[in-house]
Amino acid sequence: MASGMTSGMTITLAELARRFGGDIVGDAEQRVGSLAPLDKADAGQLAFLANQKYLPQVETTRAGAVLISLADLEKVAARDGLNFIVTPNPYAYFARVAQAFIDLATPAAKPGVHPSASIDPGAKVAASAVIGAHVTVEAGAVIGERAKLDAGVVIGRGVKLGDDVHLYPNVTVYHGCKLGARVIVHAGAVIGADGFGFAPDFVGEGDARTGSWVKIPQVGAVDIAEDVEIGANTTIDRGAMADTVIEECVKIDNLVQIGHNCRIGAYTVIAGCAGIAGSTNIGRHCMIGGAVGIAGHVTLADHVIVTAQSGVSKSLTKPGMYTSAFPAVNHADWNKSAAIMRNLDKLRDRIKALEAALDERKGE
Amino acid sequence: MASGMTSGMTITLAELARRFGGDIVGDAEQRVGSLAPLDKADAGQLAFLANQKYLPQVETTRAGAVLISLADLEKVAARDGLNFIVTPNPYAYFARVAQAFIDLATPAAKPGVHPSASIDPGAKVAASAVIGAHVTVEAGAVIGERAKLDAGVVIGRGVKLGDDVHLYPNVTVYHGCKLGARVIVHAGAVIGADGFGFAPDFVGEGDARTGSWVKIPQVGAVDIAEDVEIGANTTIDRGAMADTVIEECVKIDNLVQIGHNCRIGAYTVIAGCAGIAGSTNIGRHCMIGGAVGIAGHVTLADHVIVTAQSGVSKSLTKPGMYTSAFPAVNHADWNKSAAIMRNLDKLRDRIKALEAALDERKGE
Amino acid sequence: MASGMTSGMTITLAELARRFGGDIVGDAEQRVGSLAPLDKADAGQLAFLANQKYLPQVETTRAGAVLISLADLEKVAARDGLNFIVTPNPYAYFARVAQAFIDLATPAAKPGVHPSASIDPGAKVAASAVIGAHVTVEAGAVIGERAKLDAGVVIGRGVKLGDDVHLYPNVTVYHGCKLGARVIVHAGAVIGADGFGFAPDFVGEGDARTGSWVKIPQVGAVDIAEDVEIGANTTIDRGAMADTVIEECVKIDNLVQIGHNCRIGAYTVIAGCAGIAGSTNIGRHCMIGGAVGIAGHVTLADHVIVTAQSGVSKSLTKPGMYTSAFPAVNHADWNKSAAIMRNLDKLRDRIKALEAALDERKGE
Repeated sequence: MASGMTSGMTITLAELARRFGGDIVGDAEQRVGSLAPLDKADAGQLAFLANQKYLPQVETTRAGAVLISLADLEKVAARDGLNFIVTPNPYAYFARVAQAFIDLATPAAKPGVHPSASIDPGAKVAASAVIGAHVTVEAGAVIGERAKLDAGVVIGRGVKLGDDVHLYPNVTVYHGCKLGARVIVHAGAVIGADGFGFAPDFVGEGDARTGSWVKIPQVGAVDIAEDVEIGANTTIDRGAMADTVIEECVKIDNLVQIGHNCRIGAYTVIAGCAGIAGSTNIGRHCMIGGAVGIAGHVTLADHVIVTAQSGVSKSLTKPGMYTSAFPAVNHADWNKSAAIMRNLDKLRDRIKALEAALDERKGE
Repeated sequence: MASGMTSGMTITLAELARRFGGDIVGDAEQRVGSLAPLDKADAGQLAFLANQKYLPQVETTRAGAVLISLADLEKVAARDGLNFIVTPNPYAYFARVAQAFIDLATPAAKPGVHPSASIDPGAKVAASAVIGAHVTVEAGAVIGERAKLDAGVVIGRGVKLGDDVHLYPNVTVYHGCKLGARVIVHAGAVIGADGFGFAPDFVGEGDARTGSWVKIPQVGAVDIAEDVEIGANTTIDRGAMADTVIEECVKIDNLVQIGHNCRIGAYTVIAGCAGIAGSTNIGRHCMIGGAVGIAGHVTLADHVIVTAQSGVSKSLTKPGMYTSAFPAVNHADWNKSAAIMRNLDKLRDRIKALEAALDERKGE
Repeated sequence: MASGMTSGMTITLAELARRFGGDIVGDAEQRVGSLAPLDKADAGQLAFLANQKYLPQVETTRAGAVLISLADLEKVAARDGLNFIVTPNPYAYFARVAQAFIDLATPAAKPGVHPSASIDPGAKVAASAVIGAHVTVEAGAVIGERAKLDAGVVIGRGVKLGDDVHLYPNVTVYHGCKLGARVIVHAGAVIGADGFGFAPDFVGEGDARTGSWVKIPQVGAVDIAEDVEIGANTTIDRGAMADTVIEECVKIDNLVQIGHNCRIGAYTVIAGCAGIAGSTNIGRHCMIGGAVGIAGHVTLADHVIVTAQSGVSKSLTKPGMYTSAFPAVNHADWNKSAAIMRNLDKLRDRIKALEAALDERKGE
């Protein structure tokens, strides 16, 4: 566990507060060098309280310091010998400090282009970029400052990568796509493949049908704003005419499919295995659960939450939580209910018949 | 938008009609150089009418020419100064012209093998093929005329790629698979990985179970006919004994899984995130919606449509549309219905009891 | 079909029994060189009986020998001229023999590193390993005996690969992950990408919401035990603090997503397109069907079976089969039932009203 979190280097609480904010309660000169859960931390480690149920652990922890909110600090009775950094959001603070410790412990990649990489003379690669083995960069591409392209990445013609972009191994970015600053794309993801569009050119019906599907050229691209993260083997298709757009700070998990000409609003989060068909417009601050399916040409308002495995076939115009999935139950019980479900109209008809019979009786 | 659609070159309507068919109404010498929607096109652009609701835009468009069906042309009252190409299928015509404009605007790839590619001396690569950076082609493979293998593509032993095949970056084709002429495979797709087959070799039950899964060798391959298109990160497994077969002009979207020994009938379309288990036989001209799941060893007739997120567990022997998915509704409402759903048998029993009580009364 | 199964070399039944066990009934010197189904096998081929429904074919087969269980052999009346290898599990025996024939027929890969591969001087690669074209191995990685890394594979810093591991083309293994002996990973799979974790750091509600998602560093890794097989384009995320763990002999199909900090128990099988959210614990000997979704932070007991497309949102503490999926039916019929389903509470209320009315009548 967590070898990346012990760099051997330590930092004072005063220095943490200087870099990340927060108020120190206790010894500002206490040094910490890594992070650990409350119940496992030792005197050289920083712990955090983000969930009320761990409040009792604060009084017994041996951590060098605890990240805590002011409201929670006031609930801690026995604070003797404990040090705190008081911050409104201990979990986010923890995340930032953890990243800083990792950066300290990770060997810095040397800027430059690996000799095995294939860079078109017409591409423009910042001198501070780190281009890995067997990377391909085609003509007209522009690679920003400190961008990191891991082994096997392929960058198409005219792609623009912002500063501090990190593409993990074997990512493919098709021609003409743009990725903003600090975008992270995990291994195997594909940005800008052709959207799925074919014009039917058939005559006749049934067995007599002849003709073919004619490919609709996909001449838009994908435009990804800054601070987006995209998971492994996720696919985001290029637009047919206009671009597919991913707004700032959208977070997309693994194996997600986003169709051509979608727009995903800023700060929206999409969990793994979700699929979003073409030309759909998802608002800002939405949360799309795992394996959710969303039809094409629909619009989701800002702040919509769709729970895992649900299906959205129409626009959702109001914020709120939407669902259409059942939890698994005993197989035999399910089949019994499912059989009745398939004949709900018969059940309804029997109720109608009963109502009619009772009405008739009333008349007697 | 659409930089690929403005090449600077223009073409007369007469030349379009010569290449793509259709009858010209108006000035055959009018020149167009790109495509645009009816309401945005200018005099140098070609627009099209494929949907009745845009018919009024035809009378106000400034397009250099409009692709239109004869039936629709007859509905246009004010045609002064407008030029038309009359064709039975304006949308398919549009697609073909758009592709031609793109081909004009796209720098032609130079035939030949990139110096960083690794081609086994026992492979046979057509001189007109375009082999990109870091491509690997193993022994016995045959690469057809004008085939384009983008960066990072890996072609296994004995693979046959037809003429004009285009494999986008980082596609993998396992040994022995065949791809017909003009097949397009998008980035990251995997053709011919082992099907999922293991013989249970266990003794004992429950906690006492010991043994292991024994891998069933997968010695078939994947046989893909001409004009098939396969989406990014899609996976099509090789057969166990015989081949997995994809017939001509099948179109498969991204992140689709097709199990070993499936056969997908010609002209069938499969949307993103669908999964088809092994040994299943899908007919011709079917439409499989996004995220549909189809069980193994079933058969779908020709012209079957399965709507998005539905599950098929038995053969569907008649053409038609099939469904098993619910649209998402307000979370609290759903949970209320779902709770009753899980106890539908109790609801049914109450109805039975009511029926019995009424029957009894009748007897009084 | 099955070119890989005919090597031109043959083997006696006596030799098969020596290598794979079983008792010979008939001529131990009979030679076979490949495998075939009972109804297609000739005198030089080995067939097997694993399914009672093919029992009649045993009496008419022309196979050189038949793999059969003792119980089934006793049901065969006419055995004249037939040879058998009697084994408790003919299907598993078949699988092992088939693999042996393939190994004989497949040209042995030459140990060594392809000249185009990029191996960090700080990595340790066994001399017997086979490193393909354009492979990248970073510092501190250790590659075991006879490990086979196909073209385009990328191995991160400090990865440990056991003996006889086989990674197919374009697989990515992130830094610090461990793969046990004989692990097979199919093309495009990604092991050890960052888990999906972000701390919300927002203030305000609705349109006034501002702030961002703060990435939670993922400092665990993925720890995969021996004899695991992982399908094409599957993704298994690294842990946040501790490791994601895949126990021995787990078999995972294509396009499966396994979230950070999951533990998958030994011998469990997971079919294609399934998604398992973070921190979930799946028992031993479970069977997870295709496209199943499992929520995060739940536990499945040993020997749980979840049928295809079902969703698991709570822990399943008892072995058994669980389901929540409907099979697709005629679209119009489905919509009728679905509409009633959405208003099940009204149906229930009508039943209540009927019960009340009848009760009242009773009192009359």
